[in-house]
Amino acid sequence: MADPKTAADAPGVRRRGPGRPPGRRGDASQTRTGILEAARTEFAARGYAGASVRAIARGAGVDPALVHHYFGSKDRVFIAAMDLPLDPETLVGTVFAHGVEEAGGRLAESFVALWEHPDTGTRLLAILRTVVLEGGSNPAFREFVGAELTARLAERIGGPDAALRANLCVSQILGVALTRYVVCLEPIASTPGAELVRRLGPILQRHLNG
Amino acid sequence: MADPKTAADAPGVRRRGPGRPPGRRGDASQTRTGILEAARTEFAARGYAGASVRAIARGAGVDPALVHHYFGSKDRVFIAAMDLPLDPETLVGTVFAHGVEEAGGRLAESFVALWEHPDTGTRLLAILRTVVLEGGSNPAFREFVGAELTARLAERIGGPDAALRANLCVSQILGVALTRYVVCLEPIASTPGAELVRRLGPILQRHLNG
Repeated sequence: MADPKTAADAPGVRRRGPGRPPGRRGDASQTRTGILEAARTEFAARGYAGASVRAIARGAGVDPALVHHYFGSKDRVFIAAMDLPLDPETLVGTVFAHGVEEAGGRLAESFVALWEHPDTGTRLLAILRTVVLEGGSNPAFREFVGAELTARLAERIGGPDAALRANLCVSQILGVALTRYVVCLEPIASTPGAELVRRLGPILQRHLNG
Repeated sequence: MADPKTAADAPGVRRRGPGRPPGRRGDASQTRTGILEAARTEFAARGYAGASVRAIARGAGVDPALVHHYFGSKDRVFIAAMDLPLDPETLVGTVFAHGVEEAGGRLAESFVALWEHPDTGTRLLAILRTVVLEGGSNPAFREFVGAELTARLAERIGGPDAALRANLCVSQILGVALTRYVVCLEPIASTPGAELVRRLGPILQRHLNG
């Protein structure tokens, strides 16, 4: 993600010509905040699929190039606006870095590491609560997961039922998050992280293998 | 569960002697409602493990025998007070009726049937939302699941890690509930119930087998 302090050097800003409106606010941090506010409004109104960087820029009163400069593509805007502690593209890249046969174990490791880090764990908990509360009434998160996580996982694992297997894999992960970190069921809540990874890896691998 | 209209014939009431206080209210339905209100207060204050039928009766101003008459043991009082659409004892009995080797498939069937019935599905959704929102702040649900579901499942499947495997099995079920019925991720949200049972059964069986 670009550092706002380097904004003057970035392509999005350098490309700003006489015909393009400048950022409404002079301060880079305020501009960034304004874009994120406009993004949350746009995602809430149109979901993830229906939202566009152009409309978010319009809502923030800035040039679309500035949105691209600060955040990159639409998925990165969503990740920043929702304060997600991971991005699916990097996650899937890391998990499949050593091939599909090791992906289950690596996914289990990433999941436990993310939830057990105080900063990312707190944010994941907040997201899980929001998603459960809003459920079907807010399609943005569902569409984001479908477009950015399920699709990427399915592409890696292949096969006609790859998307369903990807969903089942995600559901096992979310279920462990719910029982271990939210409800704190015993004994899973106090099982050491390494032991949980050892148990969960083969199950996730089975989902990925089909 | 006893029908309040037959209260006069039931042992709890028949055993009421001169030394025992009668129900504070004459009307059976009001007495029942009063017991459930007292039960919710008691479970919220002391959790499931710390609550007692005696204290619930005291809170409702009735004889403990009347609580036993209307609801049976503490687990039944909890089920009624929380409006749970299933009781773990019956569920585990049904699931293991044809032996442990068929339990995964039967558990998958029971899960899908409960969630897809309009009445029980709505109640399960409400419970899941409450549990996620309250999380660790309300131990009653966690203690109830531990004492009444995890323990029963673990007893049936056996082995030193039976309770952890029971938790992992429950976590897979809760995760599918979350992705299919709450977040409505595709394609799992629109997968036919029978197909989901066919997929989920062997996964749950694997958790149960260890």
